[in-house]
Amino acid sequence: MSSLSHSSQPPASGTSDEQLPAAVANLLKRDAAGLVAAIIQQYDSHEVLMLGWMDDEALRRTLSTGRVTFYSRSRQEYWRKGDTSGHVQWVKSVAVDCDGDALLVRVDQVGAACHTGTRTCFDGRPIDAVVGHAAADDQPTAKESK
Amino acid sequence: MSSLSHSSQPPASGTSDEQLPAAVANLLKRDAAGLVAAIIQQYDSHEVLMLGWMDDEALRRTLSTGRVTFYSRSRQEYWRKGDTSGHVQWVKSVAVDCDGDALLVRVDQVGAACHTGTRTCFDGRPIDAVVGHAAADDQPTAKESK
Repeated sequence: MSSLSHSSQPPASGTSDEQLPAAVANLLKRDAAGLVAAIIQQYDSHEVLMLGWMDDEALRRTLSTGRVTFYSRSRQEYWRKGDTSGHVQWVKSVAVDCDGDALLVRVDQVGAACHTGTRTCFDGRPIDAVVGHAAADDQPTAKESK
Repeated sequence: MSSLSHSSQPPASGTSDEQLPAAVANLLKRDAAGLVAAIIQQYDSHEVLMLGWMDDEALRRTLSTGRVTFYSRSRQEYWRKGDTSGHVQWVKSVAVDCDGDALLVRVDQVGAACHTGTRTCFDGRPIDAVVGHAAADDQPTAKESK
């Protein structure tokens, strides 16, 4: 049922592992490029590490090998996280959202998730925003803050 | 500097609040539809609540009003979370990722984030996956698990 292959290439033989199971494929609502968004979260600390993109084949590899594989929109190729950097993402669980256009992949991240060397791809990249607060009477209010 | 408007419509007057600041807009790498992915995370529990989509105007409203506004790809319109359901998302912080195609919006979520009534859009929607483990010798291994 599972592939234990550590190659980033699909298996050459004609096994059922070569296709994403129909029951999973039918859950997905892909964009025009055939992709869904994959949110990668550290399973124990719950840090959001990064967001990547998966087509059916990237998801098949992710579900069947214990490691996360993405589809690169810029390079138009598959990349298995950690093959170059050593910063492997070990899959702990996968879930799909209510409308099928996003996945939540909980992983154990080795080292930095970001190619820039930060732990997450969002570290040190804040955008100024007004902070919202529920008022005592539960009417919408907003207070500016950094 | 900030708009305290609670309307989901942009202000009619020609203020600088009507456009996303250029310094922010220049960080974004939009898809063919002009959108970036917005990961919504509960700020204290760190639950990943949902994923939505924002164009520049949705992000402008989110940054300037204290509440999260998305752009609906299916309905092709803006929607401010909670206006219909009461399940408001109060903005706590916003960050952009290293390549500009994803935002991490930390919020205080009122009630259920999902329109189906579950706390998050991923609750109760697991996909079977092989669980990966680093071996004692740090070589990739994988063990099947639900």
